[in-house]
Amino acid sequence: MVKVFSFALVTIATAIAAVSAAPDPVGQFKRLGACPDLGCVFPPDRSEFLAGSFFDVRVEVHAENDVKPNTKYSLTIQKISKSHNARDNTHGNKPKVVDFSKFSKVKPSAQESWDFSYFKDAAAYWKAQDGDKTASTPVHVASTAWRKVAIKEPGTYKVTLKYNNGKKAEATWVVNPVSKRKAKNVILFIGDGMSTAMITAARLISKPHTSGKYTKHMHMDQFPVLGHVMTQSLDSLITDSANSASAYNTGHKSSSGALGVYPDSSPNPFDDPKQELIAELLRRRSKKAGGRGGVGIVTTAEVQDATPAAVYSHTRIRDEKATIVDQMIHGSNPVVADVILGGGGKFFHSKTGGKSLNGTDYYASYAKERGYKVVNDKTSLLNYKGKDPLLGIFHSSNMDVWLDRNVYKNNLAKTASDPTGTGKPALDQPNLDQMVLKGLEVLDKRSRKEGWFLMAEAASVDKMMHPLDYDRALADLLELDNTIGKTKEWLKKHGLDKDTLILVTADHAHSFDVYGSVDTQYFNSFSESEELEKKNSIGTYESSGWPSYVDADGDGFPDKWDVRYTLAAGTAGFPTHREDFQVSINGSNVPAMIKSSSHHHYKEYVVQEGAKGILKASTMSVSESVGVHSLQDVPIFASGPGSNLFAGVQDNTEIFHKIAEVLGLGDRE
Amino acid sequence: MVKVFSFALVTIATAIAAVSAAPDPVGQFKRLGACPDLGCVFPPDRSEFLAGSFFDVRVEVHAENDVKPNTKYSLTIQKISKSHNARDNTHGNKPKVVDFSKFSKVKPSAQESWDFSYFKDAAAYWKAQDGDKTASTPVHVASTAWRKVAIKEPGTYKVTLKYNNGKKAEATWVVNPVSKRKAKNVILFIGDGMSTAMITAARLISKPHTSGKYTKHMHMDQFPVLGHVMTQSLDSLITDSANSASAYNTGHKSSSGALGVYPDSSPNPFDDPKQELIAELLRRRSKKAGGRGGVGIVTTAEVQDATPAAVYSHTRIRDEKATIVDQMIHGSNPVVADVILGGGGKFFHSKTGGKSLNGTDYYASYAKERGYKVVNDKTSLLNYKGKDPLLGIFHSSNMDVWLDRNVYKNNLAKTASDPTGTGKPALDQPNLDQMVLKGLEVLDKRSRKEGWFLMAEAASVDKMMHPLDYDRALADLLELDNTIGKTKEWLKKHGLDKDTLILVTADHAHSFDVYGSVDTQYFNSFSESEELEKKNSIGTYESSGWPSYVDADGDGFPDKWDVRYTLAAGTAGFPTHREDFQVSINGSNVPAMIKSSSHHHYKEYVVQEGAKGILKASTMSVSESVGVHSLQDVPIFASGPGSNLFAGVQDNTEIFHKIAEVLGLGDRE
Repeated sequence: MVKVFSFALVTIATAIAAVSAAPDPVGQFKRLGACPDLGCVFPPDRSEFLAGSFFDVRVEVHAENDVKPNTKYSLTIQKISKSHNARDNTHGNKPKVVDFSKFSKVKPSAQESWDFSYFKDAAAYWKAQDGDKTASTPVHVASTAWRKVAIKEPGTYKVTLKYNNGKKAEATWVVNPVSKRKAKNVILFIGDGMSTAMITAARLISKPHTSGKYTKHMHMDQFPVLGHVMTQSLDSLITDSANSASAYNTGHKSSSGALGVYPDSSPNPFDDPKQELIAELLRRRSKKAGGRGGVGIVTTAEVQDATPAAVYSHTRIRDEKATIVDQMIHGSNPVVADVILGGGGKFFHSKTGGKSLNGTDYYASYAKERGYKVVNDKTSLLNYKGKDPLLGIFHSSNMDVWLDRNVYKNNLAKTASDPTGTGKPALDQPNLDQMVLKGLEVLDKRSRKEGWFLMAEAASVDKMMHPLDYDRALADLLELDNTIGKTKEWLKKHGLDKDTLILVTADHAHSFDVYGSVDTQYFNSFSESEELEKKNSIGTYESSGWPSYVDADGDGFPDKWDVRYTLAAGTAGFPTHREDFQVSINGSNVPAMIKSSSHHHYKEYVVQEGAKGILKASTMSVSESVGVHSLQDVPIFASGPGSNLFAGVQDNTEIFHKIAEVLGLGDRE
Repeated sequence: MVKVFSFALVTIATAIAAVSAAPDPVGQFKRLGACPDLGCVFPPDRSEFLAGSFFDVRVEVHAENDVKPNTKYSLTIQKISKSHNARDNTHGNKPKVVDFSKFSKVKPSAQESWDFSYFKDAAAYWKAQDGDKTASTPVHVASTAWRKVAIKEPGTYKVTLKYNNGKKAEATWVVNPVSKRKAKNVILFIGDGMSTAMITAARLISKPHTSGKYTKHMHMDQFPVLGHVMTQSLDSLITDSANSASAYNTGHKSSSGALGVYPDSSPNPFDDPKQELIAELLRRRSKKAGGRGGVGIVTTAEVQDATPAAVYSHTRIRDEKATIVDQMIHGSNPVVADVILGGGGKFFHSKTGGKSLNGTDYYASYAKERGYKVVNDKTSLLNYKGKDPLLGIFHSSNMDVWLDRNVYKNNLAKTASDPTGTGKPALDQPNLDQMVLKGLEVLDKRSRKEGWFLMAEAASVDKMMHPLDYDRALADLLELDNTIGKTKEWLKKHGLDKDTLILVTADHAHSFDVYGSVDTQYFNSFSESEELEKKNSIGTYESSGWPSYVDADGDGFPDKWDVRYTLAAGTAGFPTHREDFQVSINGSNVPAMIKSSSHHHYKEYVVQEGAKGILKASTMSVSESVGVHSLQDVPIFASGPGSNLFAGVQDNTEIFHKIAEVLGLGDRE
């Protein structure tokens, strides 16, 4: 039988079951995530830590409406078990309760206070959206923070906030033991929003089959280890990409929009309690050993977008993109990644369309202050053979998607997407495989000895699922899969395949699936008013047959996208739109548009003007313009040293702990 | 690293890629599944065989319209490689081409002939549905069959049908090598229609969590090995349950509705080319060793329904349920399972509502001819302590679902569901765990020495997903999961845990997912005409929060199903219906109904009269009354000896070969 139980998994399965825990409060609206009562402790109950990693602690005491918060409160800590497995308790010895400042040897901040407001439920929220200013509930806060705490001794701790004259908020914290490094390098491929159904659909349109059996497979399909990852967030069943990428990089769940922090209730988006990131830990550990572990970030999104930003930044508001660019080189203990490749040029400059922080030219800052080689097109990227850290920004915003970069190229010319602010279109954008292979080259040159961590994201699987543009989403998924194949070849060629753990996963899913096929010739022979007849073109079960996509040139993508027999696909959560099951040739799909005259004060989305196909009325609030994330566990494929740790079902926070175990990032010193 | 590459997996990954293969023809309608041209060979190209297992061969020669089929054709076979891996070829030695009858030592049937007709595409099909008798294409057939063939020598074979004066239809067949038995017993749990998203949703409504982390887990979540199974069928991207269960039991994909056979084009539903089943193989191998391997079948569906019938029957038409009951004890080499538990009573008798074959009393036949103990209610089931084979039939049709059996019990009294034809309702039905544990008891008593194979199905995950009754589907999924937990306990208690491989999988998925939560109090405060406001009760991302389900009594199910905060869930393929996101208390949901006056000749389904909630217009043909199966790979969880074989992504046919490997069912003698 396969040995799969790492210490991390044991922690989840046993320790957490053994200590009593207050279940999360129900309902859609909350005063503050993971703070069930008026006293809040961050990191909250059930938090797990890597031994020796840094994190901030914040306590908040809340008072609603006209009540003032009681400013007298205290925080203590008690080691209740030597083991990370709480069943191994202290056998009757009453463990010492220690003042938290004394225990952590960290001086707390001066007490702060602020106000905020929240909605009790949907009724209150929608009243407020329609103009009622009394619908929200005001909250007054007293708070204290302890910055840069580290716990070196593995074990289970009970942290207690005493507040409001005798009330208690308790949190159980587990510090995991230190492990021996198993791999030199880790590559974390993220197909943003990629579900199992999308992989199945991408396989169907790109791989040949005979008598119903595939004669070629996806690269992911050939990974020896498969797991599932639970993606729910700190305070809601559905996560966003910031929150979940943050779990992978810190081992802590968070709330929507947060990167490397637990969101507190304060107005400042940069004072929230932080956790140390994989990249920061790798730098710190390798520095101690006298070297410099490499960090690479590759994405088809903006490099400040949630998933890449989670590798190097800390803020509760993912949209603070200009500041995120600054954090990479000027943050406290900045990551200064060796490789940064993707889009997001507008946050680097102040020329046409530029939005950089204080108008700074960050291309120049990165180059001058940190020695980056800066490239802004594919040609320069491929020509770079140096050893300096590499900043490649190829688009003002998110990079164009594979289908527009490679098939419907005319769409590239439609926007002023040049990353340097010339106002011209970015016509020379690299593909994901070109970015990843160049990234590997640079990392290998700079940190072959110390090892490296590379996060590479196919961002537009998600970005194209949102507008229900399944062709573009699946093409970007195939681009990811082909990149994985080329990465495996590169590693083998460079003798790194046995030293490198490769993970392929997603941060969350969309509710996409395929339920049959569409004869688009028959579909198109009827007008929009003949919906019944149009729908008869959709074949299910035996009449689903096979779609017409063919990859005759063997490049891993269908040769033709506008074929007669396409997939009957859809999602569960969508805005009002029309669906014609056919590739959107003139740019990505835009399902809905704002209704020009609504009797509501909030935006109301209706079907896109001029859209073709069958009408699908919204299954969500009309204030939603595009499809949304979904609940289902996402797959994780693993290959290389330590891959067996990722088998079976696991929480997204465990991915951090397992990567940390594989890279040996824990430290008791 | 985990060792996961069994010979079966290597076969898929290498052998099949190495031999050239004609890709499947595109389109929704076909003359005959897996027969791309006018000459057909069954088993078709890419078939894999267990060494020594029996199978039938059929060739067909087709001629369309006014042309007569050429009755002169021949079948030959050629061993092109000694290995199941086709890369290990004959190194230039031209292998001998042998007449198939001579090679197989089987005399072919006399040549047969028949006619059938098919539709070229959707346009032709819908013309015919609206009354056009000229829309179909007639086909005339000449055919020959070879019955009960076995190939004992592992290797790769090329089978060639020469027809129509020089035309060829070729099929490559692979015979897998024999392996040593790894486990004594195999339990195959099937959650019919169960997808990863459903498991995630079932976990959410039944397991507590703190700070977003689960403090209890599903039993499936704790399995050490996880794989994905590709479910597409022989001739279409979407499978039905017969077809896919058949793949698990035979190692061969088939077409919709087929059990243990490749469907030929003949009108007779019992003359199609068969394959030997796991149960048949286990019986044959253990008989040879002087014993009797046990076979158990447990389901909450009719015991003649697709998934259970696939364990013991052969027919191209799954609806031939009366004959299927007969096949169990009177078929050629009948399985005569040791344990048969489930519904489907009406096919056993000819009393009220009875539909048994020729009016036979099969309860009496099973008892008299094969010594079965027959029980028809839970009390008798639990009281049975004997060693005789056990037939327990608890409902005239599919058993009632968990939610009606255990929570909304009044619904049981509404139908004349007594399995013996009394015309009364079946009020004393067992739960799945009770059936499985009793089944284990009987199998252990009868075949402890020789080992056994038990298939246990939670059938109504699928049967309740079809009418979009997510509460009932998820409850049955939880019933399955709780049964798995009790099974593991039972095995441990009886010292069988180390000898027993447990598999948990599905046969196909539905396109179900959760995209948020619903505040049903807010939802219900608006009328059906206030759709916009109703939809504002649906929270996404951070506003999805947590639903109100609680399992305080720890039985593995929510204590209450009609709660305020429910799941915002849906599917991609559905008929026109209304959705209110609330449990259907008075019996399962019925989404659509037949339109009373349609201008079409075919049935047209419209929204159910009196239904509440938001309107969702059909995303399929209006001739579909309920939701449909979907494409996505399904999970397989494995635990016990041989479990590592099931890691990673695999075809559904591989499940058979891996079970056969674990049970050592191959035989070269």
